[in-house]
Amino acid sequence: MNDAKIRDVLNFISDELRELDLGTTYIPRITTPSSIEFLRDYVSPNKPVVITSATAHWPALSLWSNPTHLLSLAGSQPVTVAFTPNGRADAIVSHPNDPTKQYFALPHQQQMPLSSFLTIITNPTSSPTHSSSLVVPYLQQQNSSLTQELPQLLPDIAPHLPWANEAFDAPPDAVNIWIGDQRSVTSFHKDNYENLYAVITGAKTFYLYPPIDMYRMKLRQVEVAQWCPVDDDSSSGGGGSGEMDRGMELKLVPDASGTKVLWSSLEVPPTSPPLREDNKNCFIVTVKAGEVLYLPSMWWHAVAHEKSSSGDGGPVIAVNYWYDMRYDVKYAYFEGISRLAEMAGLSECHPDEPEKGVEEKE
Amino acid sequence: MNDAKIRDVLNFISDELRELDLGTTYIPRITTPSSIEFLRDYVSPNKPVVITSATAHWPALSLWSNPTHLLSLAGSQPVTVAFTPNGRADAIVSHPNDPTKQYFALPHQQQMPLSSFLTIITNPTSSPTHSSSLVVPYLQQQNSSLTQELPQLLPDIAPHLPWANEAFDAPPDAVNIWIGDQRSVTSFHKDNYENLYAVITGAKTFYLYPPIDMYRMKLRQVEVAQWCPVDDDSSSGGGGSGEMDRGMELKLVPDASGTKVLWSSLEVPPTSPPLREDNKNCFIVTVKAGEVLYLPSMWWHAVAHEKSSSGDGGPVIAVNYWYDMRYDVKYAYFEGISRLAEMAGLSECHPDEPEKGVEEKE
Repeated sequence: MNDAKIRDVLNFISDELRELDLGTTYIPRITTPSSIEFLRDYVSPNKPVVITSATAHWPALSLWSNPTHLLSLAGSQPVTVAFTPNGRADAIVSHPNDPTKQYFALPHQQQMPLSSFLTIITNPTSSPTHSSSLVVPYLQQQNSSLTQELPQLLPDIAPHLPWANEAFDAPPDAVNIWIGDQRSVTSFHKDNYENLYAVITGAKTFYLYPPIDMYRMKLRQVEVAQWCPVDDDSSSGGGGSGEMDRGMELKLVPDASGTKVLWSSLEVPPTSPPLREDNKNCFIVTVKAGEVLYLPSMWWHAVAHEKSSSGDGGPVIAVNYWYDMRYDVKYAYFEGISRLAEMAGLSECHPDEPEKGVEEKE
Repeated sequence: MNDAKIRDVLNFISDELRELDLGTTYIPRITTPSSIEFLRDYVSPNKPVVITSATAHWPALSLWSNPTHLLSLAGSQPVTVAFTPNGRADAIVSHPNDPTKQYFALPHQQQMPLSSFLTIITNPTSSPTHSSSLVVPYLQQQNSSLTQELPQLLPDIAPHLPWANEAFDAPPDAVNIWIGDQRSVTSFHKDNYENLYAVITGAKTFYLYPPIDMYRMKLRQVEVAQWCPVDDDSSSGGGGSGEMDRGMELKLVPDASGTKVLWSSLEVPPTSPPLREDNKNCFIVTVKAGEVLYLPSMWWHAVAHEKSSSGDGGPVIAVNYWYDMRYDVKYAYFEGISRLAEMAGLSECHPDEPEKGVEEKE
């Protein structure tokens, strides 16, 4: 059996799934489901949906667009901020000095008070702390960052989504907060978590492909590199001052160990997915403030920030809940299909080394 | 890529599924679940379970082992009975006159009053209506036979299982009744239904393989044949008398159209599944009177009758509920995997003709 026949089978499954169950690439919107509806109609079939009314009662929806409120709650609280020159943390990028060489680029991470971070992200162009070599900040830690770094904000949201807890039979494994702006884009990847992604201010656009489409994600093995400040003096030392961001210049430093990572090199938004004539079957949805996206486990997703809907230039703030996924028949099929795609040369293979130091993404 | 590599991938998925989610080949027993537990822990992961207490309140459990009760309710009611010489209706069998030729054998079907059927099945060896060429009767229609042919028995059971209705968001599509004895065995096959199988008297042993194991089911394309009475006079004419069964002899008549069916040729019980050194990973469970097996959609299953637990020689009676399955990601993966197995020569291919006149089985 040749590789083209394997590709035919993968295309068949991808098409069949859309025809039988997912329908068009439109993501439906529903009001808050009961736990059994959520489980039966979305979790069990691994199908995305936007829930429009689940967070309507959260104080955060009216309060978090006001920076003064956030500062009064947690202004001096240290947070971990990711910096890149291009807004593309955890993505495959060409090396600035050698465009033929590509790396999986980790961001420069720096601790600073929430107040400093909000200053530089709220005034990206006018901030005196930014030189011409502008760096893009993004609060995007995924270590349950909301509960770990900004617990003061918890009273403004719900600690979990009750209907989701009941469907998954457990509380969330992590609750993360995301604060960014239009300059940041998250590259295509998948998470082995059930994800409920609540946008609080502004809007985010998600580009989605079901797990079976892994063979279309242009997965490539690339070496890891990290953005590091050029001037060691301005980057070292304890956090606390927004001034450490003044004139920061970042250079891409390859990891000395040669560690490799398997990652998607598909552009965001996807312009021409490989192996297919069109990109029509990318699911695209813009999740607005007050809406929650159910992003099923293992779905490929890329994320872009939209302009703040209020036009006030404020950052886009979101909170997401990661619930443990069940490693059942869907996962077993996916793993088998992935091996098949690798064997047929439709994806580069997983590196032998485990992925070191690479976190999962929204 | 060669066929052996495809087989490695299929073996990998089959093993991975057992390791990750199904565990050993032991089928657990639980008390009646809530609808959300049933959906989350069994339906969504497509995982069999025996429910021990769901039918405890059914009058049928105490009443149906008494033939007098059944006769008083519906003795004169005509029912459709399947007859074979060997208890193997809807199975691949060798032609008695030419053992090199194999057929998918449909049973001879005949209508008779329930009273006549109960007489011949309750006294299989002593019945004066049986000659030395014994035929095996089995009430095994699957056209919602309980509601269609024996509605008088409905008050003794529940018309549906409430927790299942809620999980599937619909009432059952069909409710069938099965009355048979140790001589009848149902060959390996799968149904595109969610199945809840309630044993009322006696016990049945189920042999189960998950859907992914289709490549191990020895699927073969065979021509259809039907068991027909040798003596036309004794078989034709309207039903009503148990005497039409007197001395019935059946011969296997190939279908003139040459219609073919894809069916499993795996023995029951499975002694040596192909492509694997052992048959340890067949799930085997004996479902006793008062228990309900959740047999998930698309699971391969074969069924044998156990001796009546009360030792009274009475028939084994069961009722099953078929709920519509959801054609979602699991089905799409299964269809893709099936194509792959066919392409790699691990299963014969589906015939071009649709399967004519072949019904699904318990």
